[in-house]
Amino acid sequence: MNPTVWLIGAGPGDPELLTLKAVKALNQADVVLIDDLVNPQVLDYCAQARLVRVGKRGGCRSTPQAFIQRLMLRYARQGLRVARLKGGDPCIFGRAGEEAQWLSDHGVACEVVNGITAGLAAATACGIPLTQRGMAQGVTLITAHSQDGTVPDWTGLARSGTTLVVYMGVAKLHDMSSQLLAAGMAADTPVAMIERASLTDQRECRSTLAAMTRDADAFRLRSPAVLVIGQVAACQMFGASDARLPALAEPALRRHA
Amino acid sequence: MNPTVWLIGAGPGDPELLTLKAVKALNQADVVLIDDLVNPQVLDYCAQARLVRVGKRGGCRSTPQAFIQRLMLRYARQGLRVARLKGGDPCIFGRAGEEAQWLSDHGVACEVVNGITAGLAAATACGIPLTQRGMAQGVTLITAHSQDGTVPDWTGLARSGTTLVVYMGVAKLHDMSSQLLAAGMAADTPVAMIERASLTDQRECRSTLAAMTRDADAFRLRSPAVLVIGQVAACQMFGASDARLPALAEPALRRHA
Repeated sequence: MNPTVWLIGAGPGDPELLTLKAVKALNQADVVLIDDLVNPQVLDYCAQARLVRVGKRGGCRSTPQAFIQRLMLRYARQGLRVARLKGGDPCIFGRAGEEAQWLSDHGVACEVVNGITAGLAAATACGIPLTQRGMAQGVTLITAHSQDGTVPDWTGLARSGTTLVVYMGVAKLHDMSSQLLAAGMAADTPVAMIERASLTDQRECRSTLAAMTRDADAFRLRSPAVLVIGQVAACQMFGASDARLPALAEPALRRHA
Repeated sequence: MNPTVWLIGAGPGDPELLTLKAVKALNQADVVLIDDLVNPQVLDYCAQARLVRVGKRGGCRSTPQAFIQRLMLRYARQGLRVARLKGGDPCIFGRAGEEAQWLSDHGVACEVVNGITAGLAAATACGIPLTQRGMAQGVTLITAHSQDGTVPDWTGLARSGTTLVVYMGVAKLHDMSSQLLAAGMAADTPVAMIERASLTDQRECRSTLAAMTRDADAFRLRSPAVLVIGQVAACQMFGASDARLPALAEPALRRHA
């Protein structure tokens, strides 16, 4: 069966961070189902498509996820080329797995088009190198609470030595801070809180693990925002801050055998 | 100062996974410094640029990192628009931090253009939803060993409940397997090993934590490859396997207040 549904990552907001593949799919789509977190400017690439907004924000206790899936299926069965456009990447907290499998179970093939995830773009735009050697063993992307009600193992995460990037965490700042402190993470661990990643009105608030709740309040931090927790969160690789990256020995013009 | 050096993520290999911003920068560049892991097809977008290959593979004990930095600086000071093209994303194990800061210290501004990181593209292309709810609390990107010689805290990572995505791990399969088993991760934890992510000759080998070294040998797994470790590594969201995702209740056409 030929792909008839594309699950497309729209990236973090800046339309220039769309992939060529995403643009190509949007150009060809007959109908585009659009999530809340998608920047409207991205829709300029939907040349000929019918646009259907299927956002799930706004205080509903339950989501119309089932409705969205049915809608994709109905359009696909009509022979239309369907694109489902999601903020960030469809496989990073974007439900691509369940949607793709549900479509497959109903005889409709789909293709997932990756996008730049908001946590990566937010950090980069602020000059934070997420996996800087000497400061981080890697990077962990998590949500402050999962949809099945479980919480991350903060002790394991604190031990991991990786930079933590937290999505959808604005309402959980106090919990996160308390639990990471209880897990042994240092009170002065740097934290960056970044609102509206990659957009022209992006804002950032630098703080520490102990002070983040208070500082976010004073800053009036609002969703959607991304948190970066770890040594790298004090960095500014573009040179505008005092935080210094390690391992920056002056390079010499040596050649190696 | 205006940006004169772009540090650009070329993505995992498939040229269609370049961002619009990357293509725009490559179009405008006068000189492009190209890493080893960049697919040559990407260079079709370098309309007018002088191409300089600066790969670091091939068994050199030391890398010519210093030489590359000097080269960027020299070209930038000549007034040329310089692009440095790296596989994946420059901020995910790509040294963007140290290069950006070094350039800044030398009075040259730079801009980082994000790319799709190989681990994400590899998993997606194989039908693995990295953060599938009910199976993973998130996703951790690590290398099997860092350039400063330290190793990840496998115990913390095993506890974290996140899917582990390991870069540059082919030579360390046995170590990783042993240490994650010793840290209490189950022997039958699914593992996917993916070679040449997103390219037309991508190959995947599904295994388990206990069997991964033997299976990789039999499969003749070669670098560059990405490892996915965790429950999601048994999934195939596009429907071609028996591994099932959870939480796939048949959606009903209900509307919610």
